[in-house]
Amino acid sequence: MGQKWSPKGKHCYVTGASQGLGLCTALQLVREGASVSVVARDRAKLEAALTQLETNRISPSQKLTIYSYDLSTAAGAQQALQAACELFGGQAPDAVFLCAGASRPVFFVEATEDDFKGQIETIYYTALWSSWAAAKLMARQKVHGKIVLVSSTLGLMSFVGYSAYAPMKFALRGLADTLYSELLLYGIGVHIFFPCGMFTPGFEEENKTKPGITKKIEEEDHPMQPDVAAAVLLKGVKNGTYSIAADFNTKVFRATTQSSSPYGNLAVKFIFEVIGWFGVAAWRRGVDNSIRKYASEHDAYLKQKGFFDKPPHAA
Amino acid sequence: MGQKWSPKGKHCYVTGASQGLGLCTALQLVREGASVSVVARDRAKLEAALTQLETNRISPSQKLTIYSYDLSTAAGAQQALQAACELFGGQAPDAVFLCAGASRPVFFVEATEDDFKGQIETIYYTALWSSWAAAKLMARQKVHGKIVLVSSTLGLMSFVGYSAYAPMKFALRGLADTLYSELLLYGIGVHIFFPCGMFTPGFEEENKTKPGITKKIEEEDHPMQPDVAAAVLLKGVKNGTYSIAADFNTKVFRATTQSSSPYGNLAVKFIFEVIGWFGVAAWRRGVDNSIRKYASEHDAYLKQKGFFDKPPHAA
Repeated sequence: MGQKWSPKGKHCYVTGASQGLGLCTALQLVREGASVSVVARDRAKLEAALTQLETNRISPSQKLTIYSYDLSTAAGAQQALQAACELFGGQAPDAVFLCAGASRPVFFVEATEDDFKGQIETIYYTALWSSWAAAKLMARQKVHGKIVLVSSTLGLMSFVGYSAYAPMKFALRGLADTLYSELLLYGIGVHIFFPCGMFTPGFEEENKTKPGITKKIEEEDHPMQPDVAAAVLLKGVKNGTYSIAADFNTKVFRATTQSSSPYGNLAVKFIFEVIGWFGVAAWRRGVDNSIRKYASEHDAYLKQKGFFDKPPHAA
Repeated sequence: MGQKWSPKGKHCYVTGASQGLGLCTALQLVREGASVSVVARDRAKLEAALTQLETNRISPSQKLTIYSYDLSTAAGAQQALQAACELFGGQAPDAVFLCAGASRPVFFVEATEDDFKGQIETIYYTALWSSWAAAKLMARQKVHGKIVLVSSTLGLMSFVGYSAYAPMKFALRGLADTLYSELLLYGIGVHIFFPCGMFTPGFEEENKTKPGITKKIEEEDHPMQPDVAAAVLLKGVKNGTYSIAADFNTKVFRATTQSSSPYGNLAVKFIFEVIGWFGVAAWRRGVDNSIRKYASEHDAYLKQKGFFDKPPHAA
């Protein structure tokens, strides 16, 4: 990749940017001199975000704009991108950061059809349709832009509670691995970020439905501040790093599941792989044992919830 | 896992079993003495499959039945399972083999919205809804059954042409990793199979839309006969192996992307990891170069297809 990429003077398009990681990413892009288009659904949160963006601008020439669209549909994603490009003479953004997404942990046998479909929409569709619209526009205009996807530590491994969420974060990894390869045809760069849990409004929301056993397994995790995560994300994008991770545990898991994804420093990869070789299997065996021990408590919980009183094929 | 599992006298439920891997799996289960319920959409293919199943039965007590349902909806999956269980007094199957699925390779910028949605339905939904229905039934009836998911080599890595397909095969890996963990709560076993390309009707179908560069990258691959793949799948399930692969290349890729998934023999894993450490990165660099070299030919192809004449935001 040679020379470092810089957001200064560029047009950056950020989804899910009214709060959490998306907002922090947008703010840092503004502080580094980018024009930033922020897309999300909630008008009130967007207005509040715009106020923050404005106080962080470093030049009067930066264009800071908010757009309210539903990005879970292909049409919404296309319209949002088109609207944001109008201010720039219809030119594709230099970089799109696809940060939209929310986690809804739930027991598999207690999930509803909408839990699964909702995670497809909020995680996979928001990233797929926007990256699709952006790739087509960049390819048509021969813009050598960047597409940045946001997966999760749970796109690298998974465990009890994440049957609706983790598959979609895995799907984003599959999408990024494909796009990294395919968009070489157009000189479009692809990046994927694997953040761990972050102290965000979304994190508070997900803890409301999170199964007790899942919380227990996560109790020694250290969630990250979203502005710290955003800084790591941006540093990775500037350096041309395909696969970006911020915390130690995620780096260990990632090293054990790299497959053909490009990796930066091979010596660093090797060290994390050795740690992972012993650590990850030991971690899983510990978690497996916790789950097995929890089985009778879980059985009592399901009894109390009336799970066994329903017809055998009940949803 | 100790004692080996045997399909003899068990009720096995196989989806996507009117042809290809599903049919071969069903036939081997019949030859080993299982009662087999076969589910697919196409009535004529199901009738032909039943004739084959009947000629392979080893005992008059085996129940061999076909069911035509649309498994891409939660309701269809639930109804199909319920119908198949009726013959067994409503009892959950001992094992469900979720083989439904089809690949539709296509260039990202040429894909239609339905290409993406179709792959969600044929790959992710067919496995999700059936595993969901089966897990709930097994949990309610305290049946310590087995749920077998079928991913692909392209659930372990991906490249140009598979932007609609690979993400869903990755999603199945995320689902299986979660269910392996979560269904420990109920004593339900989970397996995932990663077959390479197979000489099946589906393989002939996918080659019709496969981009030229994708075919070129795959030209030295050796597709497998589906009955050989089915034998490896069944052997893995009998041995209680969580992650099952049949061919050398898939085993190499898998060793580099194992994460917290349980693995069998660690010495074997180590050997494949060492091969993968050098081989996979070299493979990717070679593929990346092929794609870059193909860029100008691809540009001419898109020109000829009128891609650049459309409005910039055209679908």
